[in-house]
Amino acid sequence: LRTGDPEVIYAAGKTPEQVVAIARRLHEAHPAHPVLVSRADDAVRGALRDAFGGLCTEEPVGRMVAVGAPPVVSGGKVTVLCAGTSDLPVATEAAFTARVCGAEVVQVSDVGVAGIHRLLATRPVLAASDCVVVVAGMDGALPSAVGGMVGVPIVAVPTSVGYGAAFGGLAPLLTMLNSCAPGVTVVNIDNGFGAGLAAARIVRGPRGNTEAGR
Amino acid sequence: LRTGDPEVIYAAGKTPEQVVAIARRLHEAHPAHPVLVSRADDAVRGALRDAFGGLCTEEPVGRMVAVGAPPVVSGGKVTVLCAGTSDLPVATEAAFTARVCGAEVVQVSDVGVAGIHRLLATRPVLAASDCVVVVAGMDGALPSAVGGMVGVPIVAVPTSVGYGAAFGGLAPLLTMLNSCAPGVTVVNIDNGFGAGLAAARIVRGPRGNTEAGR
Amino acid sequence: LRTGDPEVIYAAGKTPEQVVAIARRLHEAHPAHPVLVSRADDAVRGALRDAFGGLCTEEPVGRMVAVGAPPVVSGGKVTVLCAGTSDLPVATEAAFTARVCGAEVVQVSDVGVAGIHRLLATRPVLAASDCVVVVAGMDGALPSAVGGMVGVPIVAVPTSVGYGAAFGGLAPLLTMLNSCAPGVTVVNIDNGFGAGLAAARIVRGPRGNTEAGR
Amino acid sequence: LRTGDPEVIYAAGKTPEQVVAIARRLHEAHPAHPVLVSRADDAVRGALRDAFGGLCTEEPVGRMVAVGAPPVVSGGKVTVLCAGTSDLPVATEAAFTARVCGAEVVQVSDVGVAGIHRLLATRPVLAASDCVVVVAGMDGALPSAVGGMVGVPIVAVPTSVGYGAAFGGLAPLLTMLNSCAPGVTVVNIDNGFGAGLAAARIVRGPRGNTEAGR
Amino acid sequence: LRTGDPEVIYAAGKTPEQVVAIARRLHEAHPAHPVLVSRADDAVRGALRDAFGGLCTEEPVGRMVAVGAPPVVSGGKVTVLCAGTSDLPVATEAAFTARVCGAEVVQVSDVGVAGIHRLLATRPVLAASDCVVVVAGMDGALPSAVGGMVGVPIVAVPTSVGYGAAFGGLAPLLTMLNSCAPGVTVVNIDNGFGAGLAAARIVRGPRGNTEAGR
Amino acid sequence: LRTGDPEVIYAAGKTPEQVVAIARRLHEAHPAHPVLVSRADDAVRGALRDAFGGLCTEEPVGRMVAVGAPPVVSGGKVTVLCAGTSDLPVATEAAFTARVCGAEVVQVSDVGVAGIHRLLATRPVLAASDCVVVVAGMDGALPSAVGGMVGVPIVAVPTSVGYGAAFGGLAPLLTMLNSCAPGVTVVNIDNGFGAGLAAARIVRGPRGNTEAGR
Amino acid sequence: LRTGDPEVIYAAGKTPEQVVAIARRLHEAHPAHPVLVSRADDAVRGALRDAFGGLCTEEPVGRMVAVGAPPVVSGGKVTVLCAGTSDLPVATEAAFTARVCGAEVVQVSDVGVAGIHRLLATRPVLAASDCVVVVAGMDGALPSAVGGMVGVPIVAVPTSVGYGAAFGGLAPLLTMLNSCAPGVTVVNIDNGFGAGLAAARIVRGPRGNTEAGR
Amino acid sequence: LRTGDPEVIYAAGKTPEQVVAIARRLHEAHPAHPVLVSRADDAVRGALRDAFGGLCTEEPVGRMVAVGAPPVVSGGKVTVLCAGTSDLPVATEAAFTARVCGAEVVQVSDVGVAGIHRLLATRPVLAASDCVVVVAGMDGALPSAVGGMVGVPIVAVPTSVGYGAAFGGLAPLLTMLNSCAPGVTVVNIDNGFGAGLAAARIVRGPRGNTEAGR
Ligand SMILES: Nc1ncnc2c1ncn2[C@@H]1O[C@H](COP(=O)(O)O)[C@@H](O)[C@H]1O
Ligand SMILES: Nc1ncnc2c1ncn2[C@@H]1O[C@H](COP(=O)(O)O)[C@@H](O)[C@H]1O
Ligand SMILES: Nc1ncnc2c1ncn2[C@@H]1O[C@H](COP(=O)(O)O)[C@@H](O)[C@H]1O
Ligand SMILES: Nc1ncnc2c1ncn2[C@@H]1O[C@H](COP(=O)(O)O)[C@@H](O)[C@H]1O
Ligand SMILES: [Mg+2]
Ligand SMILES: [Mg+2]
Ligand SMILES: [Mg+2]
Ligand SMILES: [Mg+2]
Ligand SMILES: [Mg+2]
Ligand SMILES: [Mg+2]
Ligand SMILES: [Mg+2]
Ligand SMILES: [Mg+2]
Repeated sequence: LRTGDPEVIYAAGKTPEQVVAIARRLHEAHPAHPVLVSRADDAVRGALRDAFGGLCTEEPVGRMVAVGAPPVVSGGKVTVLCAGTSDLPVATEAAFTARVCGAEVVQVSDVGVAGIHRLLATRPVLAASDCVVVVAGMDGALPSAVGGMVGVPIVAVPTSVGYGAAFGGLAPLLTMLNSCAPGVTVVNIDNGFGAGLAAARIVRGPRGNTEAGR
Repeated sequence: LRTGDPEVIYAAGKTPEQVVAIARRLHEAHPAHPVLVSRADDAVRGALRDAFGGLCTEEPVGRMVAVGAPPVVSGGKVTVLCAGTSDLPVATEAAFTARVCGAEVVQVSDVGVAGIHRLLATRPVLAASDCVVVVAGMDGALPSAVGGMVGVPIVAVPTSVGYGAAFGGLAPLLTMLNSCAPGVTVVNIDNGFGAGLAAARIVRGPRGNTEAGR
Repeated sequence: LRTGDPEVIYAAGKTPEQVVAIARRLHEAHPAHPVLVSRADDAVRGALRDAFGGLCTEEPVGRMVAVGAPPVVSGGKVTVLCAGTSDLPVATEAAFTARVCGAEVVQVSDVGVAGIHRLLATRPVLAASDCVVVVAGMDGALPSAVGGMVGVPIVAVPTSVGYGAAFGGLAPLLTMLNSCAPGVTVVNIDNGFGAGLAAARIVRGPRGNTEAGR
Repeated sequence: LRTGDPEVIYAAGKTPEQVVAIARRLHEAHPAHPVLVSRADDAVRGALRDAFGGLCTEEPVGRMVAVGAPPVVSGGKVTVLCAGTSDLPVATEAAFTARVCGAEVVQVSDVGVAGIHRLLATRPVLAASDCVVVVAGMDGALPSAVGGMVGVPIVAVPTSVGYGAAFGGLAPLLTMLNSCAPGVTVVNIDNGFGAGLAAARIVRGPRGNTEAGR
Repeated sequence: LRTGDPEVIYAAGKTPEQVVAIARRLHEAHPAHPVLVSRADDAVRGALRDAFGGLCTEEPVGRMVAVGAPPVVSGGKVTVLCAGTSDLPVATEAAFTARVCGAEVVQVSDVGVAGIHRLLATRPVLAASDCVVVVAGMDGALPSAVGGMVGVPIVAVPTSVGYGAAFGGLAPLLTMLNSCAPGVTVVNIDNGFGAGLAAARIVRGPRGNTEAGR
Repeated sequence: LRTGDPEVIYAAGKTPEQVVAIARRLHEAHPAHPVLVSRADDAVRGALRDAFGGLCTEEPVGRMVAVGAPPVVSGGKVTVLCAGTSDLPVATEAAFTARVCGAEVVQVSDVGVAGIHRLLATRPVLAASDCVVVVAGMDGALPSAVGGMVGVPIVAVPTSVGYGAAFGGLAPLLTMLNSCAPGVTVVNIDNGFGAGLAAARIVRGPRGNTEAGR
Repeated sequence: LRTGDPEVIYAAGKTPEQVVAIARRLHEAHPAHPVLVSRADDAVRGALRDAFGGLCTEEPVGRMVAVGAPPVVSGGKVTVLCAGTSDLPVATEAAFTARVCGAEVVQVSDVGVAGIHRLLATRPVLAASDCVVVVAGMDGALPSAVGGMVGVPIVAVPTSVGYGAAFGGLAPLLTMLNSCAPGVTVVNIDNGFGAGLAAARIVRGPRGNTEAGR
Repeated sequence: LRTGDPEVIYAAGKTPEQVVAIARRLHEAHPAHPVLVSRADDAVRGALRDAFGGLCTEEPVGRMVAVGAPPVVSGGKVTVLCAGTSDLPVATEAAFTARVCGAEVVQVSDVGVAGIHRLLATRPVLAASDCVVVVAGMDGALPSAVGGMVGVPIVAVPTSVGYGAAFGGLAPLLTMLNSCAPGVTVVNIDNGFGAGLAAARIVRGPRGNTEAGR
């Protein structure tokens, strides 16, 4: 087990029973660590509540559940930005994951590259961040603009929001990989979990190697 | 012949002799209209100079030559924006084309989405524009940001500048097609000519139909 | 708020309740401007009718609703062309949007590139247009043919109509980006809204900058 | 050996010596049939002239050479259409191949979809054709328009002419595969040879099976 | 109306009522010509039967209906080949279309490239054909093998049968476009209709130009 | 070191000096095993000859050199098939690699799917094979046809031979992955080395694990 | 019929009745050989049970049924590896197929490239294998790591497990085709059947040619 | 200017004179900060040496030059891993960039996923790292394996090394985006500069915001 990172179950394509069984096994093996469940729909969240009761922390927007020990803030500050309604599930997955991994998290959800004043208004929040996660679909332009405003690492998350030539998130993925702004790295389309975990590692500092390589 | 639009020769893949011959034929048919030559390298530009002398107006950065009647400003104002060195040939192709088509053109060449202050400094120029052409490679994010600053039509030109996942301009092309900003339309990768001509039509107003349909 | 352009809500992926709530907020902020709702299915249109009653103007073919102040014709003439049944929803989305944005709009819906006589018969309508929106799926060839008939800006809209090697609209998108006809610019696949708004800006002229950059 | 079809050598990637050797072997095996060499650059054409002298018929624009028995017109009429300079090599490859395969061939090289009047002017030629080969790059729209003017089979050839989103001929290939016009079939990008041979078979009628299946 | 070709309605995405209405209009305009309906599911076929009764000829496997004058064999012989169950709907669409367009049609449905003996057994049928339509999904290899057995035109139809790297028919489409066998031309994925119509034109000979260009 | 497999140096993108240095190090470490150099152009082959003299076995067509102990036939029979001139370098790379890895190798180089009689003539050779490597570009149809003739493993190698819609070998790669014939597995485009090594392992039998996992 | 390989029915897209009918025909033709049904959902499996009763061997995880003579172990050892829950259906399809084809099969289902210790723990199993089938989705990295641990042929199966930039299995497919490890060959996405059959042929040795080429 | 990050000039596509001019302007504006030049070939490096003499620090393998103040180690430890010769230029670009940005850097260049023992031998180096940059072409599998060995952020860099289905780096890019290992983020193909800068920011901690947003 890696220090600070929870065990994770990706619930998509698994039955609620399968998810509960895996969660129980992981929780029993390491009761002091939270077990994180991602892509947990209503049925999975219900089954986890039934099985673990008060041990569950739920995040319906981000479709996540944490089972077990509540997260302790042990790292720096992560800011998660997105433009609004459609990107919220992925952004919230990132924010919740980063929190469970020990980061202090601020989520801002109404900024877009086409509204420069609202973007500039986030400057104080950005200035207090140790890492910024930027979630965007369609043109995926937001990380490039944010990249001109901060000097900390930026983790960019393309989403499958959009239609036509968005090609399921390919367009914002390519935009972000080609960002002219320095310090931007990218994760898979809709991978809020991966961005949140990477951000938490970034703001936590070098403490993860002691138990690695199981 | 359509009112206001010059005849155009795309010189790539043609010999200087072929270009001169076509230009001569077009010029003789309509001596009062300029003939525009795009993608004109040194050899083509030299051959046109040798053949037409003072009838030529040259634009080496944009690799263009206009043969014949100098352009007369007859339309509104077009602003052409790009980030710098690498996108300049395409941006200049757009600017020169728009001028030859009768537009008044301002070219601004040091704005990028990652430098918000320089972008905001272009606001007075943008506010005086009837159409904005935005040229960008790599992430192609600039039109989305400009789209938040103007209420006039924006013609976006993706360029093949970049490497790797820019895939020869595919990345900025997709970015621009998916722009969240209203009023953005897009032309082919590196098609400064097409953008300049469309912008000139936009700022000229409805006078093009009298001779159409030859 | 930009002069002349309505606020827009993209209803796909939102619940009727979410759409109504956003529409109410936007309408109350700017009661004198229409709020446009696109991709509004029966449920969304019903919810908007229930919430706003006579304030709604509905366009079921284009799956649109305008809430609030009725459009006032303040600009030039936009013609919207398509081949028929299958492309009608996108073409109607473009036409309705352009109308709400103040353009005078004519919609012609039975022209295709393989029926040259019917296409030539549209010449009088085209000759009276200040901008032409051309909507086409499958081969997307129509804008190239129309481009030979007019001297005004053409906004081309590829649609996802077709199957097999149409690849969800990729084929007509590429066709249109490569159009040999001058003056053609392109928007995203199925983006009738974007084409209608751009066309309305084109025929409105330079009045959009006063309030931009909110 | 199939009746009417020549043996063919694709010279690209072969040395002049290799081409001459293969041609010699094929010519000696069937002296009464022409051997066709495609993609024959200056060096290959020179080597064939040196080796076979007056037995060679050369077509430099189409980069082809026929070695041996001159073609005899034995079939119907094929018309080969293209827009001009850039598509001429492929169109000429198609025309020369069809001739060597026994067709009577007319080549028209200044029609494009954006110039409807010139296209309509080809009607008498088209009306006298038994098969039409249409060669086009960039938007590849020409076959769709021609498809509305004839009732005979149309063989469409996309070319790699163009840049950016033409993606080496992918754009016109998809356009042609999605053509709404009836009777259109398609060959590989730049495959003038394949189109010419198919057209010759089409206008020759059912006489090819006697010796097939060697 | 082109001589010999029926009017066609592509029923996918249309309501049964829309299809019946269009069919009625077309039938009344040209009662002597059949109207063909493709991609006609059970509901559409039922509605056509209700509306036109004995005027309908149905082909449920090919999902087609012909309304009106029964086809008269007026052309040569078309053979339609495919490997079996999965490709049958597309092959039958091709066969039925060719018949309605006046061809004499033989359909063979159990040949594949991996069973060479069964393929060789089709030689007598192929030898009596004036055109061969070959329908294949997955690897799309069958047209290349058939191409070695006949001297007549081959129309290849890729299908969307397959999974994974078949990519919805892209794999057999590319295979067929790259066929090393002479005389092969290709239509869109699953476009049995287009192949059948092209084949019928091929075996009918040059009689289609009299009324073209409506 | 794995039993039976040589060490390999991929010479593309390396200087002759780098290749010689790596070869010397590997040869000195295991003098009893051959060192194989792939993609060895004239300069690399010359440098290896200069450095190792009689220790070198050269294969110019396959652009390969083996340095050190000559191969000992220790396994079964591999047959390598291709259609001819263009695919020969890749086929020969496969054949030479398999030989150096201990297989007995037969190479047949004039079979194609469009020439069924020549293909059927290879039946005796195929019947005596323990593994067949099939190399093909363009349509890549050959492995599917061979798959119908043998009951042993088939390793298919797509090549970058072709143009247009061959897309650098993508077309035959997809064809082969979708082969309907049983027993076909596929390697990377132009990877004759990988196919030869896999074939040698297949015909060698289960002896490779003793020293694995260095 | 090829020695050792069963006849196979791919049930996807077929009705239970069609599957039973084909299975009955194949079983009656060769009662001594098993008939394999792949992609058999609950309804298909039920229909086969009803029709063949005790003649059926079912594998619900791999969605397979074998009808007829039970498999006899006649070949070497195949090990099938995958990472877990999501890849299990494909891995089990491979394992069951290999067993029906006569191989002795071991299936290990909890190894991933990110857990090196668990991977190293499989070394004894791998050392006893004559062929290894490696099934992986998402990054598809597992075959490369396994490739460093064995000296026998490796058959890699990419799966469509994953989301976003996995693009339906394209990502692991490309990973596997580019594997730097020697001895890896690849089958189509999710093609557990093909991998199992190829593996069984590999460990069976050269006995398949006697009856081939039916 | 952002704290800690140098200004950067991407020299590809610029003349040596242009690079020197830009470098001079940047150096004079901020003499206390290094100016970094990437993709600097021999001519560019020579011109920079001529212009700036002892102010230059050169890194020929990584094709980089730093002009001005030498880097001061102010952050944590970055380890840069790659497999060898071919990936070295990109890995060295990353390492040099990270050093110029203030990181302490260790570069290890002989690990690959197919050589597990050598990979495991890097464990002590990895355990002492605050961030790991992993550079890999072809299958791009290395980051996934390294991801199982550390608990710190991993920045993965796909390279264009490889051929065929590597598609210019697309294969390793997709592999890395789909990595199952936690903590992996990705940059553009061959973007060693971007990875090095991001890694330096990661190990520097939260000090970059004071001067941001120029
Ligand atoms: N939302 C997510 N996106 C991507 N990977 C995830 C996600 N949630 C969990 N994972 C990864 O999936 C693995 C668990 O997969 P599984 O064993 O199928 O539950 C873990 O290694 C996680 O790193
Ligand atoms: N199955 C089919 N595949 C492709 N095109 C078709 C098909 N059936 C009809 N068409 C074409 O679709 C057009 C009719 O489309 P629509 O007007 O939407 O019914 C005609 O021009 C036909 O050429
Ligand atoms: N022609 C080839 N194609 C693919 N891989 C090869 C080839 N030749 C050698 N290799 C592989 O490349 C690796 C050697 O690469 P390198 O260390 O760069 O010489 C070995 O692991 C071989 O498996
Ligand atoms: N090797 C590189 N790869 C990607 N971006 C780079 C590289 N080197 C410099 N850049 C970026 O390119 C921009 C400078 O481009 P330019 O103004 O054309 O010199 C800077 O913003 C850098 O972030
Ligand atoms: Mg955005
Ligand atoms: Mg940009
Ligand atoms: Mg069209
Ligand atoms: Mg064209
Ligand atoms: Mg097939
Ligand atoms: Mg082949
Ligand atoms: Mg894996
Ligand atoms: Mg690697």
